[in-house]
Amino acid sequence: MPQKELYFEDFTPGLKFESMQSPTITTQEIQEFGEKYDPQPMHLDVGAGSSSFFKGLAASGWLTAAIIMRLRVDTIVVAGGMIGVGVDEIRWTAPVRPGDSIRTEHIVVSTRPSKKYSDYGVVKISTIAYNQRDEVIMRSTVNFLAPKRK
Amino acid sequence: MPQKELYFEDFTPGLKFESMQSPTITTQEIQEFGEKYDPQPMHLDVGAGSSSFFKGLAASGWLTAAIIMRLRVDTIVVAGGMIGVGVDEIRWTAPVRPGDSIRTEHIVVSTRPSKKYSDYGVVKISTIAYNQRDEVIMRSTVNFLAPKRK
Repeated sequence: MPQKELYFEDFTPGLKFESMQSPTITTQEIQEFGEKYDPQPMHLDVGAGSSSFFKGLAASGWLTAAIIMRLRVDTIVVAGGMIGVGVDEIRWTAPVRPGDSIRTEHIVVSTRPSKKYSDYGVVKISTIAYNQRDEVIMRSTVNFLAPKRK
Repeated sequence: MPQKELYFEDFTPGLKFESMQSPTITTQEIQEFGEKYDPQPMHLDVGAGSSSFFKGLAASGWLTAAIIMRLRVDTIVVAGGMIGVGVDEIRWTAPVRPGDSIRTEHIVVSTRPSKKYSDYGVVKISTIAYNQRDEVIMRSTVNFLAPKRK
C-alpha cells in the first residue's frame, strides 16, 4: 500500500512513527562499509576485532546511522523528499553485530516555519533504534524540511 | 610514511589536523549509497533530481558524513582505533554534487577523562568540510574515545 505523502502541516509534536521493516545487518555489509568509509580493525576483520574495544566485529556507527536513515525515509514519506538540514545529537549506545536486526521509533519533537525557505517548515524528529533484544543501539535527533501545503 | 598513533594525552584543545586527501565524489557513488540507504529522487536519478529542492543529483547527507569519517580516521590515527561515542551536531550547509572534491579541517575542542571507561578519555573534535571552491559543505562536532598511555 503506497504511503500518504506528508506535508509540514501533517507533523505535530508527539506524533509517532514505527518502522515497518527490521533489516538484519550482515558481516559483508559491515566490512564493505568499513573498507570504504571507516577502515579500522573492528569494522574490517573478525580476528582483529576480537582484540579491540568492541571484542569482535562491530558496525561503524556511520553505517548504523545510514541504515536508520533508510528506515526513517521508508517510514516517513515527505512530499518531494526528506531534506535533511542537520543533526542535533547522535549517541551510539551499544555495538551492532552481524546478525543484529534494527527497528526504529520516531517521534516529532517540534515544528516551526523555516526562516530561510518560506515554502517549507522545519520538523525535528527524535529516533530511537533497537536491536532484536530491544536494547537501544542508537538515539538521534534530526531536523528536516517539509513543504507547506500550497 | 606511517602516522604516529595518538593517545588521549596527545590531544589538547586547539590542536589542528588537515586531511591529506580530497576525494572526488562520483555519480555512481551517490546513486549506490542512495539506493541502499537514502532512496529519494534527488539521490538516485539525475532527471528526477532536476525538479527537486536540490535542482539536480546531490549526495545523501549521510554519504557526505561517511566520506568525512573516512577523512577523519585517515588523518587522526588513534591507538587501537577511533571509537565514536556520539555526535553533538551536524549541519549540511551546501549540496554535494558529482565531481565535487571534499577536504576537511579538524580542531580539538575539549578533552576529559571518561567516567565510564577508566582507561580512556573523551576527545571532542570539530570538523569543517569544504568543496573544491572552498565552500563549507558540512560542519560537525563529534566525540570519540582515545586510550590513556599506560
